[in-house]
Amino acid sequence: MAQMPKLLNENCIEGFLSNFDNVLTDCDGVLWRGDDIIGRSNEALSMLRALGKKIFYITNNSTKTIEDYVKKFESMNFVADKEEIISSAYATAQYLKQQQFSKKVYILGSSGIALELDKVGIAHTDVGPEYQIGDPFAMDEVIKLEPDIGAVVVGFDSYLSFPKIVRAVSYLQQPDCLFIATNTDEWFPRANSDLLIPSAGCMVSCVETVVARPPIVIGKPSKNMFTILSGKHQLQASRTLMIGDRSNTDILFGKNSNLQTMLVLTGVTTMEDLEEYASSTDEEKHKLLPDFYLPRLDDIINLLKDF
Amino acid sequence: MAQMPKLLNENCIEGFLSNFDNVLTDCDGVLWRGDDIIGRSNEALSMLRALGKKIFYITNNSTKTIEDYVKKFESMNFVADKEEIISSAYATAQYLKQQQFSKKVYILGSSGIALELDKVGIAHTDVGPEYQIGDPFAMDEVIKLEPDIGAVVVGFDSYLSFPKIVRAVSYLQQPDCLFIATNTDEWFPRANSDLLIPSAGCMVSCVETVVARPPIVIGKPSKNMFTILSGKHQLQASRTLMIGDRSNTDILFGKNSNLQTMLVLTGVTTMEDLEEYASSTDEEKHKLLPDFYLPRLDDIINLLKDF
Repeated sequence: MAQMPKLLNENCIEGFLSNFDNVLTDCDGVLWRGDDIIGRSNEALSMLRALGKKIFYITNNSTKTIEDYVKKFESMNFVADKEEIISSAYATAQYLKQQQFSKKVYILGSSGIALELDKVGIAHTDVGPEYQIGDPFAMDEVIKLEPDIGAVVVGFDSYLSFPKIVRAVSYLQQPDCLFIATNTDEWFPRANSDLLIPSAGCMVSCVETVVARPPIVIGKPSKNMFTILSGKHQLQASRTLMIGDRSNTDILFGKNSNLQTMLVLTGVTTMEDLEEYASSTDEEKHKLLPDFYLPRLDDIINLLKDF
Repeated sequence: MAQMPKLLNENCIEGFLSNFDNVLTDCDGVLWRGDDIIGRSNEALSMLRALGKKIFYITNNSTKTIEDYVKKFESMNFVADKEEIISSAYATAQYLKQQQFSKKVYILGSSGIALELDKVGIAHTDVGPEYQIGDPFAMDEVIKLEPDIGAVVVGFDSYLSFPKIVRAVSYLQQPDCLFIATNTDEWFPRANSDLLIPSAGCMVSCVETVVARPPIVIGKPSKNMFTILSGKHQLQASRTLMIGDRSNTDILFGKNSNLQTMLVLTGVTTMEDLEEYASSTDEEKHKLLPDFYLPRLDDIINLLKDF
């Protein structure tokens, strides 16, 4: 048993605000869902910025480049400089650069990863749709493995195909071939659809099941992205608030990085989930409990109007 | 710590033979690899048959029908009647029939499943290649869910694609939609190839990760297929030997069904694996240890020549 998180309200808002200088916020499920902004989330962040808080955007989505994100933020009237944005694709490229990686990367993922690798001068295979082959035992004639692949990076790929999986797992037979996952989110937060759209976790588990070894996970909940951001901007963990919609990535990332945490209920994790975590006897589940929660990020607008 | 399995040799062959009347044998990795027969495995089974043993073939591969298997056995000079063959596709159809399933099945798999469902009169979706869609959020316009799907069957599908996964996980959002896996084998046993070819386990884990509930597994190690075979042919478990190449499916299936077990080393599980299982303190790993092992099935030919 653990305590339920506090609802952020007029009684605690003053203490809450005095405790942080920096805000890291997740994007999908907090600020927008797909291409739809969630209420007045842009205004909410602008008000925090007006109070002197620094704002950083931190996303596990590896399909876009930082420049793509700048455009997306602009189109929805968010204030966002490219230095304030970090994605798992960017962090993957930075991770490999820090390792002084000098071989070639096999990408089972999207162009966001390819373009971020280009920026740090790391060679990689192409992304996009690939032919399909009906007979799995005819693959030998079509698939020729490249000799210089030293890492397999798996992220979200809407062109996932069997030949791509064959390549990924075949390269990973070499024990020194790095197995990197940009992120392991299970699905995308969406509204008003009968369809559940899987995210990168689906591609990662597919490969992991076959190769029977765990990937190095770059995105949240791993603290990689905080390490990069805090190095660049001298952020103090104890003076930083993480806002997210998914406990097993965002909130756990906050805990792993020693940040304060707030959950919004416009994405993946629900009040029922929080109750389950709080009532669990498993201490690992307690790590999924944020310090505060708010139904929606723009609920903060009302709370901030007197500051 | 547990005892290592016994090597089947001239000292123990007589006692071994006196202990069973029925032989169930796995196919891929024991009798053949892909389309290549493993040595004289057909002769080995003929000799056991000549000694009065009943032979049954039991495979987790769901891509073919029983009739396809009859042809494959004939082409490699195995004696095999269709009543002696059971596959996870056949067993899946039987399972649904026994449940008096009356809705439609969504198949993420191959024609073997489709054709076995046809035989028991269960409606299903089409199999084979499907278009690809680049933008995951454009799927709503293209994918229309059918209202009468009551089960998702996942098996090996070399035409795995993202739209197929979207359909599978979207149907499984309904808690009463059955989630069935034909099998969870990780990869196909092969020789002389740089490529690792994933098996159905890769498709299953991909879906399972997103829907966060476990499938009903029809194939080995579940004892379903022994229940069907023993009902049809009045087989006594204690008088039945299971031969396989993969401990976590074949040998565990034998243990789950209270059969005697023998591993051959021409497929997935290696001597190093057996040593790891034996030296483990985890009792679950001890279940992966067969009673006997042989390097190759046709090594039994020499041992049987005096009987």
